[in-house]
Amino acid sequence: MALKVVALAGGVGGAKLADGLAGTLPAEALTVVVNTGDDFTHLGLRISPDLDTVVYTLAGMADPDHGWGRADETWRALETIGMLGGPTWFQLGDLDLGLHLFRTDALSAGQSLSEVTERVRQAFGVAVWVLPMTDDQVSTMVETDQGTMAFQDYFVRHQFEPRVRGFKFVGAGVAQPSPGVLAAIERADLVVICPSNPWVSIDPILAVPPIREALAEKVVVAVSPIIGGRALKGPAAKMCRELGWEPSATRVAEHYGQLLTGFVLDRQDINQKEDVAALGIHVEALQTVMKSKDDRVQLAEQLLTFTETIDLGVTP
Amino acid sequence: MALKVVALAGGVGGAKLADGLAGTLPAEALTVVVNTGDDFTHLGLRISPDLDTVVYTLAGMADPDHGWGRADETWRALETIGMLGGPTWFQLGDLDLGLHLFRTDALSAGQSLSEVTERVRQAFGVAVWVLPMTDDQVSTMVETDQGTMAFQDYFVRHQFEPRVRGFKFVGAGVAQPSPGVLAAIERADLVVICPSNPWVSIDPILAVPPIREALAEKVVVAVSPIIGGRALKGPAAKMCRELGWEPSATRVAEHYGQLLTGFVLDRQDINQKEDVAALGIHVEALQTVMKSKDDRVQLAEQLLTFTETIDLGVTP
Repeated sequence: MALKVVALAGGVGGAKLADGLAGTLPAEALTVVVNTGDDFTHLGLRISPDLDTVVYTLAGMADPDHGWGRADETWRALETIGMLGGPTWFQLGDLDLGLHLFRTDALSAGQSLSEVTERVRQAFGVAVWVLPMTDDQVSTMVETDQGTMAFQDYFVRHQFEPRVRGFKFVGAGVAQPSPGVLAAIERADLVVICPSNPWVSIDPILAVPPIREALAEKVVVAVSPIIGGRALKGPAAKMCRELGWEPSATRVAEHYGQLLTGFVLDRQDINQKEDVAALGIHVEALQTVMKSKDDRVQLAEQLLTFTETIDLGVTP
Repeated sequence: MALKVVALAGGVGGAKLADGLAGTLPAEALTVVVNTGDDFTHLGLRISPDLDTVVYTLAGMADPDHGWGRADETWRALETIGMLGGPTWFQLGDLDLGLHLFRTDALSAGQSLSEVTERVRQAFGVAVWVLPMTDDQVSTMVETDQGTMAFQDYFVRHQFEPRVRGFKFVGAGVAQPSPGVLAAIERADLVVICPSNPWVSIDPILAVPPIREALAEKVVVAVSPIIGGRALKGPAAKMCRELGWEPSATRVAEHYGQLLTGFVLDRQDINQKEDVAALGIHVEALQTVMKSKDDRVQLAEQLLTFTETIDLGVTP
């Protein structure tokens, strides 16, 4: 019997590890629960950036250079929007647009985000389960020195330049997990927190109370998105610093704190193993930079091997 | 002083003559008033097929083969929609989509259709005025042997196969002409009814009461879209027959009736001149098939020459 795994994921980094797990586990053994705090409406389109990144990655359709969006994308609709003086700060590819139009239409017709996601998953040939964390609206708001702004505003339009002071996940406190999320966590042998941004990709998922509660009883292992004090992509290290902490793998482990059973940091940070172990968390140093598909699968395999040692009750 | 002209236009045929007039008249002398009865919402997008055909044609951006849509178009968003099992019966090109997204967003933000059209016109470098007939919602409904259906349903999805019994222009009776329409008609020396489908492209415009009333006092000249008993494009002849009349240029003149001062039919139909003249309408036979840009301009020039003879009071 294969381990049953739930992976919590945000965008690019999370999608890569989810893809590695999908390459290791039987399809029915893996459920990926995806952040929807970044979801927003743009030009009338309902856009779910993290869900799309995860589905495109798992389908092998993701752009290999950016990590987000589709491979062999074109930008002709955006060209027209630009000619007309419309907003071009959010990159809408033509292939990608088809999905946004389909989703917007289905949501308007009363379908839930998880129903739409299920249809997209099947159409794109993704074998593992992919669930939005919730079908309810949760909006990640970033409190910055330039005021409070919606996540995509902060992230894309302002290129994460404003200094962050904190975050709000509006709606999370009353959001219900989407159908299947709690059942997947309940039957899971292991919950993996993917190397996504802790503050804006994973915390929105954890801010949904029934999910947080369900995780409290599980073996939860996180993979650090901070390597050598830096994030491979995105603003995680910058945010960490602006929130008052020196960015490090240890800081990420402290951030998740009691939630964690185990923690994986990069081999570059092997000297932090003791600091993390001192928190009462099982810890392993692995090669966590995922440049190739093989890297993804290898990290997933080694992560699963590491968790077996935890299950055997080896103390940190 | 150049003649001041208002052209009433639907889709492809209307757009071609409007383009010919634009090639003949000084820009400020021409206002094109466009049918919006075909406008509809599809996949959440607000689509104005006739307005787009007219603007693309006047901008030199129209696809030369279809007459509608943009030249050098691609269909990648639609490819994704098809993969997802979404509706693909309405052709949404990628370049075209940008305009639909821009318009949908602007209308949602409270702008009027004429404001959006003005912005599009300027951005695309169209020099003459282009006005939607109204900013209010008017929906052309086609009564057929298969039930009553919205125009695009009849025209695109059902490929105008159902037999028509009549038409309704829902909302037209209470619609107001968009800003500038009545003033343009008032100052016009000539109103040209372009060779568009009388029943579904021109009648919706005429169904807006203040427009119909304003036209009553003007020199109005129509160009027949029926040549040799057939329509060059679309269902005009088929509709005519299903409504109980043999399709002919004369039938078109009869349809517009009292509204017309003059009528232009194709040289092929020169033997119908007397029938039209018998209706008390000035009539001229011209080369009305517009295959090239030169054809468009030549027809426009000869049409204007013909109207000068009317203005001189020459009897039919």
